[in-house]
Amino acid sequence: MKLWDKGYDIDGFTESFTIGKDRELDVMLAGVDVIGSLAHLKMLHAVGLVNEEEYKSLQRALVDVHGMVERGEFVIEEGIEDVHSQIELLLVRKCGDAGKKIHTGRSRNDQVLLDLKLFAREAIFETLEYVERLFGLLIRRAEEDKDVLIPGYTHLQVAMPSSFGLWFSAYAESLADDLLALKAAYDMVNTNPLGSGAGYGSSIALNRQMTTDLLGFAGLAYNVVYAQMQRGKMEKNVLFGLAAVATTLGRLAADVCLFACGNFGFVLLPDKYTTGSSIMPHKKNPDIFELIRAKCNHLQSLPMQMAMICTNLTSGYFRDMQLTKELFLPAFRELNDSLFMAHLVLQEMEVKQDVLRDPRYAYIFSVEDVNERVMAGIPFREAYRDIGMQIQEGRYRDRHREIHHTHEGSMGNLCLAEIRDKFEQRVAAWDIATVREAVKDLLGNR
Amino acid sequence: MKLWDKGYDIDGFTESFTIGKDRELDVMLAGVDVIGSLAHLKMLHAVGLVNEEEYKSLQRALVDVHGMVERGEFVIEEGIEDVHSQIELLLVRKCGDAGKKIHTGRSRNDQVLLDLKLFAREAIFETLEYVERLFGLLIRRAEEDKDVLIPGYTHLQVAMPSSFGLWFSAYAESLADDLLALKAAYDMVNTNPLGSGAGYGSSIALNRQMTTDLLGFAGLAYNVVYAQMQRGKMEKNVLFGLAAVATTLGRLAADVCLFACGNFGFVLLPDKYTTGSSIMPHKKNPDIFELIRAKCNHLQSLPMQMAMICTNLTSGYFRDMQLTKELFLPAFRELNDSLFMAHLVLQEMEVKQDVLRDPRYAYIFSVEDVNERVMAGIPFREAYRDIGMQIQEGRYRDRHREIHHTHEGSMGNLCLAEIRDKFEQRVAAWDIATVREAVKDLLGNR
Amino acid sequence: MKLWDKGYDIDGFTESFTIGKDRELDVMLAGVDVIGSLAHLKMLHAVGLVNEEEYKSLQRALVDVHGMVERGEFVIEEGIEDVHSQIELLLVRKCGDAGKKIHTGRSRNDQVLLDLKLFAREAIFETLEYVERLFGLLIRRAEEDKDVLIPGYTHLQVAMPSSFGLWFSAYAESLADDLLALKAAYDMVNTNPLGSGAGYGSSIALNRQMTTDLLGFAGLAYNVVYAQMQRGKMEKNVLFGLAAVATTLGRLAADVCLFACGNFGFVLLPDKYTTGSSIMPHKKNPDIFELIRAKCNHLQSLPMQMAMICTNLTSGYFRDMQLTKELFLPAFRELNDSLFMAHLVLQEMEVKQDVLRDPRYAYIFSVEDVNERVMAGIPFREAYRDIGMQIQEGRYRDRHREIHHTHEGSMGNLCLAEIRDKFEQRVAAWDIATVREAVKDLLGNR
Amino acid sequence: MKLWDKGYDIDGFTESFTIGKDRELDVMLAGVDVIGSLAHLKMLHAVGLVNEEEYKSLQRALVDVHGMVERGEFVIEEGIEDVHSQIELLLVRKCGDAGKKIHTGRSRNDQVLLDLKLFAREAIFETLEYVERLFGLLIRRAEEDKDVLIPGYTHLQVAMPSSFGLWFSAYAESLADDLLALKAAYDMVNTNPLGSGAGYGSSIALNRQMTTDLLGFAGLAYNVVYAQMQRGKMEKNVLFGLAAVATTLGRLAADVCLFACGNFGFVLLPDKYTTGSSIMPHKKNPDIFELIRAKCNHLQSLPMQMAMICTNLTSGYFRDMQLTKELFLPAFRELNDSLFMAHLVLQEMEVKQDVLRDPRYAYIFSVEDVNERVMAGIPFREAYRDIGMQIQEGRYRDRHREIHHTHEGSMGNLCLAEIRDKFEQRVAAWDIATVREAVKDLLGNR
Repeated sequence: MKLWDKGYDIDGFTESFTIGKDRELDVMLAGVDVIGSLAHLKMLHAVGLVNEEEYKSLQRALVDVHGMVERGEFVIEEGIEDVHSQIELLLVRKCGDAGKKIHTGRSRNDQVLLDLKLFAREAIFETLEYVERLFGLLIRRAEEDKDVLIPGYTHLQVAMPSSFGLWFSAYAESLADDLLALKAAYDMVNTNPLGSGAGYGSSIALNRQMTTDLLGFAGLAYNVVYAQMQRGKMEKNVLFGLAAVATTLGRLAADVCLFACGNFGFVLLPDKYTTGSSIMPHKKNPDIFELIRAKCNHLQSLPMQMAMICTNLTSGYFRDMQLTKELFLPAFRELNDSLFMAHLVLQEMEVKQDVLRDPRYAYIFSVEDVNERVMAGIPFREAYRDIGMQIQEGRYRDRHREIHHTHEGSMGNLCLAEIRDKFEQRVAAWDIATVREAVKDLLGNR
Repeated sequence: MKLWDKGYDIDGFTESFTIGKDRELDVMLAGVDVIGSLAHLKMLHAVGLVNEEEYKSLQRALVDVHGMVERGEFVIEEGIEDVHSQIELLLVRKCGDAGKKIHTGRSRNDQVLLDLKLFAREAIFETLEYVERLFGLLIRRAEEDKDVLIPGYTHLQVAMPSSFGLWFSAYAESLADDLLALKAAYDMVNTNPLGSGAGYGSSIALNRQMTTDLLGFAGLAYNVVYAQMQRGKMEKNVLFGLAAVATTLGRLAADVCLFACGNFGFVLLPDKYTTGSSIMPHKKNPDIFELIRAKCNHLQSLPMQMAMICTNLTSGYFRDMQLTKELFLPAFRELNDSLFMAHLVLQEMEVKQDVLRDPRYAYIFSVEDVNERVMAGIPFREAYRDIGMQIQEGRYRDRHREIHHTHEGSMGNLCLAEIRDKFEQRVAAWDIATVREAVKDLLGNR
Repeated sequence: MKLWDKGYDIDGFTESFTIGKDRELDVMLAGVDVIGSLAHLKMLHAVGLVNEEEYKSLQRALVDVHGMVERGEFVIEEGIEDVHSQIELLLVRKCGDAGKKIHTGRSRNDQVLLDLKLFAREAIFETLEYVERLFGLLIRRAEEDKDVLIPGYTHLQVAMPSSFGLWFSAYAESLADDLLALKAAYDMVNTNPLGSGAGYGSSIALNRQMTTDLLGFAGLAYNVVYAQMQRGKMEKNVLFGLAAVATTLGRLAADVCLFACGNFGFVLLPDKYTTGSSIMPHKKNPDIFELIRAKCNHLQSLPMQMAMICTNLTSGYFRDMQLTKELFLPAFRELNDSLFMAHLVLQEMEVKQDVLRDPRYAYIFSVEDVNERVMAGIPFREAYRDIGMQIQEGRYRDRHREIHHTHEGSMGNLCLAEIRDKFEQRVAAWDIATVREAVKDLLGNR
Repeated sequence: MKLWDKGYDIDGFTESFTIGKDRELDVMLAGVDVIGSLAHLKMLHAVGLVNEEEYKSLQRALVDVHGMVERGEFVIEEGIEDVHSQIELLLVRKCGDAGKKIHTGRSRNDQVLLDLKLFAREAIFETLEYVERLFGLLIRRAEEDKDVLIPGYTHLQVAMPSSFGLWFSAYAESLADDLLALKAAYDMVNTNPLGSGAGYGSSIALNRQMTTDLLGFAGLAYNVVYAQMQRGKMEKNVLFGLAAVATTLGRLAADVCLFACGNFGFVLLPDKYTTGSSIMPHKKNPDIFELIRAKCNHLQSLPMQMAMICTNLTSGYFRDMQLTKELFLPAFRELNDSLFMAHLVLQEMEVKQDVLRDPRYAYIFSVEDVNERVMAGIPFREAYRDIGMQIQEGRYRDRHREIHHTHEGSMGNLCLAEIRDKFEQRVAAWDIATVREAVKDLLGNR
């Protein structure tokens, strides 16, 4: 049946077009919507807009709804547009007319933005845990495999000796740096938009500092026009933070796919994490890392998608913003799953011990010979010419297959402790405990 | 003459294809290349790879080259490939064979990356100055025009009263938040890659901590493989920092274009900054803000361009990275010029004082009436229904055209001091003085 | 429960990670998978790899499965990975061992690519119907409202007279041009990849021309390596074709949002398609057009997302391609729904008849006066100066509010018939009937 | 000196900000601007707005200017804003007041759009020549190297035999398909916007069909509002056409970089087109293909950049469009140079003859054994299991290292003639001769 056939339910279609994926996505926001309402309610009570009785009744009802969410029992009923309407409905059922008072001094706009921020805040914490876990593994494997040498490439041409110690910890340090973008995004997330209403504030004497404190926010998004401008911008910045991690993870995945290629054979992926062919016994397709790579590319393109939706729009809320949820909310899971899978497979991935025995890597140590002479006082260009000549005349013998790199960050001095420090100091800048305790307090769990 | 015609200079073409825009772009890097070399030289001397005499000669020669750069006299000579070769040439001319020693323990890869970071570090400081200047103006104009009311729109439909105070300071606070992404990028920029060589370190006993200190870096990019991975990633992150500012500026420009439209008429742009038509006396085309908007959109697409070049590449240097310079280096100027022009025009832009007199905005205060009743104890829904009825029956009179918003960030309480604090605290997190003094020390200017 | 908690079902998670959204997306491919198999089967029979009995049994079973799909009864059973496995399972259930023979000389790679192409081919036809419908409406409204004048803007400044006739038909002609990109994509879609196997062909003597004819393809994707390279490329090109239409539709939506703004008031959207506020009686939020705009922006960013996934990958199949389905398959519905909604609302949208009466548009006809003089032989610059002077001295009277534009494509000569011709000629280039008849033949429906 | 320092030339800066890169880019448009003016002039004469004497004088002057352009003597003088002003100036110098008449019934908007289209039309022809040349080489090399076998990979795992014949001609057929997007873009380019004025037409009785014919356009962009909407859209579509070719070329470059890697060693790049290291004698960095790859990625991101500038803008001209020239005009050269360099190096690239001798590819023919049995009547699954067992038990011997693929597009039947036909038929759809003759006629060169 075509949409334009007689008898087609146009009204139903129109409704579903405007609601979009809200009903399915909004379930993810149910918990934080309750938390935001608890803070708003407490403030309304404090400024005298909700009386003691109403306060107690609503507070209890909200905590009940949160329990439903926790137990997986919360659903958006048929015919109800979104999570906010559903929760209002539950409150009215439980508290009667008082249920409507929760909306005093609040608009759907600041409510949704608050929800997205509370959601993102906790979601970032969770992503952080996944990143930490992978980081820990990378450092551990770098330590374990620090003496396993591999060729280092430039231009995909064999260039110099490298090692699995270097390779694993390179990605560890990369993750440490990715925390910077994620933290920058978090710092914008972690400011309170509640009270900005539809973007022009309210003549009701709200106490915005109070809800800021109750929700554990580090500060206020003061200007009410700006608060609404954060919609779209906030999502884009967080997505860029996730994309930063995805950039690192995607490149790691690309490396694994190359290293697992038979022409390299540097690593061996566990059978259970590859697909193969009984007829091609050496074929071990690294599907998981290919999917990680693709997902990481997808994640990297999300900030641009957000920009395309928002750009050239003037200030003030537009319904266009509804679409940002579809891009934003599922991104965390996409990244977290990828981080988890990478961890899972990498911890069992074998590294080949004697890669450099292959004669194709014979000249890889020649730079070492040059440097040995340099350290002995021979000018670089001369030492270089001399060894080069030996090689071209076939006289070169790679005497030593050991590496004497000693400077910071080199094969012989990986600085794993320093890299770990860098990572941990950056994690410590997050005020996770404060935030989580504030939320617990609101739920009366402390 | 077609490229494939006989007699066409294929070798020359090939050379120009591989060099690309390096010769023109590299001039921007001359100053920082010298600074990086000064630090590297000092370290080579300290670890005994350059003797006292060589050190003094090279040091003096490098400072001389820096002087040439400062005076605008530095040029890349015909036939010289890039800035690094040109400087080497100058050193050999001045110091003879010692001139070649500067390359000991250094590769073109870590040298270029260092240059890009030193360039970006100072360029970010400069952008920061432009941002600060615009921020200051926005706060000042918010203060001056805080009582000039305009309609606030949602869905581009008149919604509630707003003010120029709110509007100007919204963008000020937005800039304060944009510093977060810029600082996150800066913190990655401000780590030392020197000593990572071609991406696999060196068997020469370099002292990387020493060059880190000399160059005023906050820390090391330890892992040598990771250091090279920063290429591309670093540029992308900085471009995202610039794009954050551009997002704010672009939206401000979009607003000005709308407000300057005759159907709004909220602002009047100075004649000298508009183009017009003698036959359409009211036509004042806001070309400058249209160009700012377009440039800001261009800037917003640069991180994606960087991602497209880098993605799916495995680790290790690739020549692809050369192209990143074309995207990266000119972006600062594009943004700075736009910030400057916005400042220039906004400081003379007149705001219309009595916009709300127009009867089309008659109902804009009705929400205030509702809230007045709410504060007096009448339930919101009832108050809302009552005023709505008055309006529909034509009985509504907007009694008060004053605004009594008092909460934080509202028209009556703009929190300009708090916004300024937020901005200044973020600027204070930058260690500009330390960095600049380190550079001065290297040049012997202190 | 965290993914890494003891007892978590790691195997189940790994499986769901690799399968991704295939189970839900693949249902969309069930019908075309059967059609592809029918053609492949017929060819296997013709070249003697399937005997008469097997052929008849399998043919009947496939037609049955197609019936299930048509009746909405086809499901991918629990534990079955994707649509292809499900259909194989059904065949084995019905035909025993013969069911496995359908896979002879075919790989999952060419099978999936074929399915995507067969799906895209029909989906493009469907989109074409939506585009035609909107085109028809735009031409009709252009004819109806050809004399309703509005101001024409440049730089969002009032410039010259325009009309709803011009405005509606501008978008009609734009759609006609968008068919070009869609057709270009279609022409690549409409070539047969079947027989390319995993990307390196088969030593089995397949008859690829036969399946090409049976499936109604216009030709072959000859080279088997290239055939597989079409994966990703094909999706990107089709998405660009959809994005072309979305670009037009998004801009139309942006115009409607502006024209519906109270400061313009050129159009009146039907109440049932707007959201409002009982307290702001004139507030009619054009949510539907805002959502269309946002969706069209989303659609415009999809080709870039595809590029991000594919770029820098070498030739040969990669599992990364699985992710392209998530971007590709839902895009058609997103566009079609938007086209349908635009049609629905535009057909009831009222246009304001007397916009130009507003004194703010007083000078809009002055260019006409200039041109009148030019036609009478006065040099343009002189005529222009004269009228300009009248205006500046307040002597100008807009004598005529009629428009005498006569040239092709102007207000007085909209060339609607020519635009319709352009559109229809482009539609006629599609071989829809041929394709659909071939498919019907395979199903034995003719 | 800071931009805001006293004494800084603000007016000069403002002017340079608004002019942007127009002065340097516009030189590229000089020739086509003259051609457009010649057609406009002829039409003005025909409809009686320019008399015989003026016509002759202006016609001669324009042809003279074109000669200057051809001889490389055309410059935009100091103080002149753009190419259009420069040409007007030259006309007034030569023809006096008549020089101004050329602007009758034309606006800067339709003039620039016309110039961009005339430029793009010829630039596309030129790109087509580069594509044809590379196509020809690929087909030739496919023929020459059709028997040189290499492993075929899926998931970057050795999968089945392939050949250089397949590999070269895969990219040839890919280019044939890329012509589709380029032609779609061309067909929109090749419609006449002249007469659309500033986007609202003219009350002057222009003869648009006449200029359409004179300029060799295939048809009109009828609707004057739509004609102006083509600005931005046209550039985006053409850039997508170029990006299509770039996608193919970029992937070819990625393959070459991989094949030239020592771990593959399938190809040998000529020394003069690689960079190396005297100390690593086997190191041959494929810089040229890395740069091609990066440039192709840059080209692929341009359509998105265009979209970012244009999206969410309402109809009517905006100055934002000026920026599109910076993205659009240089793109042709970037692609053409890359196509040329690829051709240059590929024609001298050696392919290794005996790659498959390496024991790592031992099992590559096992699928052939399976298929042999299938052709002999053994069910596929059984044949597969049998050979798989042989391999696992070490009993497998690859008896034949020949390939007996016979179906269309397989190693044994490359269908080069068919692929060439496909390419040539698509090229033939271009009306190059008609267009070029029309231009010659205008210049009086026939």
